Amino acid sequence: MTGIFVSLDGVDGCGKSTQISLLKEWFEQQGRDVLVVRDPGGTKLGEALREILLHRTEIPLVGTAEMLLYMASRAQLVQERILPALAEGQVVISDRYLLANVVYQGSAGGLDTEAIWQVGQIATCGRMPDLTFLLDIDPVISFQRMQGQPDRLESRGLDYMNRVRQGFLDQAKELGSKVVKINATNTISEIHTEIVERISSLLQAT
Amino acid sequence: MTGIFVSLDGVDGCGKSTQISLLKEWFEQQGRDVLVVRDPGGTKLGEALREILLHRTEIPLVGTAEMLLYMASRAQLVQERILPALAEGQVVISDRYLLANVVYQGSAGGLDTEAIWQVGQIATCGRMPDLTFLLDIDPVISFQRMQGQPDRLESRGLDYMNRVRQGFLDQAKELGSKVVKINATNTISEIHTEIVERISSLLQAT
Repeated sequence: MTGIFVSLDGVDGCGKSTQISLLKEWFEQQGRDVLVVRDPGGTKLGEALREILLHRTEIPLVGTAEMLLYMASRAQLVQERILPALAEGQVVISDRYLLANVVYQGSAGGLDTEAIWQVGQIATCGRMPDLTFLLDIDPVISFQRMQGQPDRLESRGLDYMNRVRQGFLDQAKELGSKVVKINATNTISEIHTEIVERISSLLQAT
Repeated sequence: MTGIFVSLDGVDGCGKSTQISLLKEWFEQQGRDVLVVRDPGGTKLGEALREILLHRTEIPLVGTAEMLLYMASRAQLVQERILPALAEGQVVISDRYLLANVVYQGSAGGLDTEAIWQVGQIATCGRMPDLTFLLDIDPVISFQRMQGQPDRLESRGLDYMNRVRQGFLDQAKELGSKVVKINATNTISEIHTEIVERISSLLQAT
C-alpha cells in the first residue's frame, strides 16, 4: 500500500484538531494505519523546540531564528517519523507543515517567502504533502473559539492573523491543486465530508 | 571607526580560546571596544540551543536538524549582537561561525556543503567575517589537549575529526584570502604574533 501524506492548516482556531480526529477515524475505518503528528513537535527535539517557540516568551527571537527553529523541528520530524511511516505505507496526517512557516514568518512576519521555501526544501528532503487542506476563516471568528493563555504567535494579535489568513490564500493560489481551500465556517460534518471526498479522489487517482 | 569582524576556527582543542583572549587584549590595547561571542551561543536562545546541540545527547538529532539549529542560534546572534556591535564600530571576535557548520555537518557529517552555505547566507543576513583564522592541527594532537567529558561532537571520534580537519582545509582553499591558515602546533606566542600581523594588514587596507 502506498503511503499518503496529508496536512491541515489555517489560522489558529480554524478547527484543525477536530477535523484531524475525524479524518484519522475515517482512514482507520478504511483499514489504514494512521500516524498523526504536529509541526512543530512530534519528536523529542520538536517538543523541546515547540516549548521555546510558543511558550518561552522570555527568550527573544528574531524572525529568521524563529523560522529556522521551525525548520529544525520539521527536519527531525520528517526523517525520524514521517518518511519511515510513509515507507511502510501508512497515512500521515500533519497538523501544520512547511506552508504555515512560509505564511506565519514570511507573508505575515516579513521574511522573504521564497527564502523560506528554499530552506524548507532542504529541511523536508523535498517531501511535501500529497494534499493540504486550508481551513479558511476570518480570524475575528476563529479567535472567539480559542481558550486559555495566548501563545507567542497568538499574542501577535488580529492584524497579524489577518496577514496570516491572506498569506494562506495567496500561497494556496500559487500552489494550485495541491492545496484545497475549505470554508471553515461550515459545520464540522460538512467540512469532514468535503475533506473525505477530496481524499477519495486522490486515492482513486493513485 | 569601522567595525571589524573576525572569527577563529579549527578542530576542538586547536587553541582557539587562548588566542581569542590574547587577541581581545591586543585590540583593547589599541583602544578598541571588543565583543567576544561564541557560536553556537551568545544569546538566550543560543545558549538554550547550545545545551541541546552539545550536551542533551538523549535527544536524537538528524544531521539536517542539527545544522538548522546551529543556523537558528547564529541568526539570533548576528541580529541581536554582532550587527549592532559592528554598527557601533566595535571589534567582534567570534569563536566559530558559519564555516564550522559547513565543515562539521557538511564535509564531515555528509550534508551537502552548498546547501549549508545557502541556508547560512539567509541565517547570517549575508554577514561573513572580514577575516577567519583557521588553527590547523592534527586531531590526534589536539585531542590530547582536551579535558572533561566529550560533548556530542567530540564523542564522534577521531575519524570524524580527521574529516573535519580536511573539510576546513578544503573550504579554506575555496574561500581564498578570507581564511588564514595557521599552524596550530606553533607556540602560543608565535600564533598570536601571526594573527596580529594579519589583522594589522587588514586594518591598514581598510
